[in-house]
Amino acid sequence: MLELYTAPETCALATLIALEDAGADYRLHRIDFGKDDQRSAAFLAVNPKGRVPALVTARGILTETPAMLAFVAQSYPDAGLAPLDDPFAFAQLQAFNSYLCSTLHVAHAHRMRGHRWADEPEAIAAMQRKVPDSVGACWAYVEAEALVGPFVLGAAYSIADPYLFTLAQWMEGDGVDPGRFPKVAAHREMMRGRETVQAALRAEAA
Amino acid sequence: MLELYTAPETCALATLIALEDAGADYRLHRIDFGKDDQRSAAFLAVNPKGRVPALVTARGILTETPAMLAFVAQSYPDAGLAPLDDPFAFAQLQAFNSYLCSTLHVAHAHRMRGHRWADEPEAIAAMQRKVPDSVGACWAYVEAEALVGPFVLGAAYSIADPYLFTLAQWMEGDGVDPGRFPKVAAHREMMRGRETVQAALRAEAA
Repeated sequence: MLELYTAPETCALATLIALEDAGADYRLHRIDFGKDDQRSAAFLAVNPKGRVPALVTARGILTETPAMLAFVAQSYPDAGLAPLDDPFAFAQLQAFNSYLCSTLHVAHAHRMRGHRWADEPEAIAAMQRKVPDSVGACWAYVEAEALVGPFVLGAAYSIADPYLFTLAQWMEGDGVDPGRFPKVAAHREMMRGRETVQAALRAEAA
Repeated sequence: MLELYTAPETCALATLIALEDAGADYRLHRIDFGKDDQRSAAFLAVNPKGRVPALVTARGILTETPAMLAFVAQSYPDAGLAPLDDPFAFAQLQAFNSYLCSTLHVAHAHRMRGHRWADEPEAIAAMQRKVPDSVGACWAYVEAEALVGPFVLGAAYSIADPYLFTLAQWMEGDGVDPGRFPKVAAHREMMRGRETVQAALRAEAA
């Protein structure tokens, strides 16, 4: 059985939804950031990076959302969560997910985690002030160039969709108006109505 | 034929080495950051993100290093550049590459590209001051936890190796002493001696 380490309102939700999509047998472990659980010796033994998500498999532990999403898609091929037999289409999917982790999520992280990249409180405050602009520019790129619609890759649902949905939860908190991005907003609404998304949100909140 | 858009001293070198490893037929296009080529209408038509690398294929254009590296490995399976038939081992490889793009490269980018995340010169200077520390912490993680040795995954060379080698070129510029990280330093020396790495460095400089 797979075991997913998660915390509410983190990108772990993407993998949780994908596990639901795959019909995987899994168990959740909730990490309490309020209690600094992610820095506990017990959790650092699972993930030395001290972050969620982490996925415990029979072979060992995996981290990093794009890698975990592709693992779920490849481990449950019957669920049809990625174009596994087409290297170009698979690369397009991976490029989208890589952009989310290395650019959009990183821009967002400057709101709450600026201490990773500067020590001075004034610099951290300066980063926070730019988040609506820097994260907004990422959403403008997704809206104009990357999200084909209705799903990320077009007609076919894939592991890019739960990842996009997960990061789209943060728009309002980042000071980005979803009204500027109708395709992204429609995607978010459509995803919210899916049974597997509802199940993942219930599991996260339980 | 594949066409790779590149610029010296960028992460495009990773894909260039992988193309050499694969024995791929490719052509290079060099983007001159000094002339702001990456903002030209011609290049934005190739990659609306205005960044290198970008890989032009017969099917369309790919971006994002982890996606391009996996594409090369899957397109040239005989080159043996990734454990393509083992979802867990492939996910470990992808987790490593995802960490490089979303954490190590991002920490490094705060030295030269701080304007992405703050407007005030003082804040940008504060980011630059923290780079030896933040990038150094990434290398400490790679040394202690991620690089098995001699290659990233252990005995088998993979697309993680040119990516690691590429980012290791930046250590001294980031104020990080390679002497602190003997496994990373040994990997860099070993990679520098490989014929495909030499060929890629010559092609980049030509």
